[in-house]
Amino acid sequence: MKILLVFAHPESRSLGAALRNVAVKELETQGHEVRVSDLYAMRWKSEIDHSDFPSLAPDDRLHVAAASGKAFAAERLTEDVKAEQEKLLWADVLILQFPLWWYSMPAILKGWIDRVYAYGFAYGVGEHSDTHWGDRFGEGTFAGKRAMLIVTTGGWEEHYSARGINGPIDDLLFPINHGILFYPGFSVLPPFVAYKVDRLNSVNFECMAGALRKRMQTLETTSPIPYRRQNGGDYLIPSLQLRPKLENPGTTGFSLHITDR
Amino acid sequence: MKILLVFAHPESRSLGAALRNVAVKELETQGHEVRVSDLYAMRWKSEIDHSDFPSLAPDDRLHVAAASGKAFAAERLTEDVKAEQEKLLWADVLILQFPLWWYSMPAILKGWIDRVYAYGFAYGVGEHSDTHWGDRFGEGTFAGKRAMLIVTTGGWEEHYSARGINGPIDDLLFPINHGILFYPGFSVLPPFVAYKVDRLNSVNFECMAGALRKRMQTLETTSPIPYRRQNGGDYLIPSLQLRPKLENPGTTGFSLHITDR
Repeated sequence: MKILLVFAHPESRSLGAALRNVAVKELETQGHEVRVSDLYAMRWKSEIDHSDFPSLAPDDRLHVAAASGKAFAAERLTEDVKAEQEKLLWADVLILQFPLWWYSMPAILKGWIDRVYAYGFAYGVGEHSDTHWGDRFGEGTFAGKRAMLIVTTGGWEEHYSARGINGPIDDLLFPINHGILFYPGFSVLPPFVAYKVDRLNSVNFECMAGALRKRMQTLETTSPIPYRRQNGGDYLIPSLQLRPKLENPGTTGFSLHITDR
Repeated sequence: MKILLVFAHPESRSLGAALRNVAVKELETQGHEVRVSDLYAMRWKSEIDHSDFPSLAPDDRLHVAAASGKAFAAERLTEDVKAEQEKLLWADVLILQFPLWWYSMPAILKGWIDRVYAYGFAYGVGEHSDTHWGDRFGEGTFAGKRAMLIVTTGGWEEHYSARGINGPIDDLLFPINHGILFYPGFSVLPPFVAYKVDRLNSVNFECMAGALRKRMQTLETTSPIPYRRQNGGDYLIPSLQLRPKLENPGTTGFSLHITDR
């Protein structure tokens, strides 16, 4: 398989970087082809702005979605963005790896999403009417591809558990897994989350590395999170609300959008 | 009161900018003092990296929390970061205003959080032991101050409702409201969310502007979201899990961390 790993950590000697190396090595050992977008090393530009759309006149008002759609269709996006889009089309699997900063991804990775996910590419795909709200949430440009997160955090697993003060990790990652990965069509694998990374001794690191290798060995066979497909019949259109009574009694919040197994 | 509005939109003629102007004007009319950090206009640097810590030697390994804590204590953070920290200390109310991009804030605003929220300032505050896990989630540097979000989105309110496909807006914003604002001590007001902003006619804009003015008039009196305080007795320490049976039966996920009214 072809694997794109997008890596967002400023320090090449960090634990995150060590885990990235473990993942890449394991994937290559299995005969996969791996490309890494190391955003800090690439000096990735994080802010979407006027300069992202060279065809806009200096005085033109920037409407991001409109400008993005026009530039994508005309192949006038900037070269750095086009290169990342090509990698996404090339890859069978996308891995986003980052430290959890303030319960989300670092700015540089958010900027990769904001800029690379152009209109017509990652959104604004498919018919858009009051009976079909685009090809998204299970359909779209990346349908047939897989994606997963590798997340490192200094916090304890308990703090991210069902009753933990931070909120459950799966809920904290839902806006990314569901809203950024499932939205443009990826099948989303459960994340690999490494906790307490600031206090790791070498035994613990080896244990963590072993678990990560295992996940890299099972990329093709791990079952994706069974998110409901927007156009699979579960949602009313155009309100895009889940039809009544599809869920197990008592299910609320983000969990509504996962089919009961 | 003193109000800091942090604004993250690349276009000064956007609907977001128009709403910001409505908010600022209303606040000033009431006699409040308002400062605006317009991140795009300021050309804010989004990426936290080695250059954020001038006292680090070029070859020093960057450990973000450690470097941040050391630089904050020695008053050696960069001038742009120090200026924002001073504004935060000055303000009675913090407003973050942004378009919802990919179910979260734009990269440039995440970069403001990542860089301004230094260790010792927004985290790493208070005693940190196995019996007191820091002054956070209701305590901390910003205790006694209020904060709220102003969010614009092209999507429909139904899509962000309890059964909407995007997930409920309050859950999508929880990592920000709870994890970024409540964490360092702010009392967090319910967000002002403007939906369908791409298809707004002037009547709808006036209606929206009126609702926003109302929120600006009630900044001092609106009840904050009643998040549970970490050190108020509801959580076991150090696992930081909510004690059993505090919640109404059937409550799960993020809602566990809001007291039942």
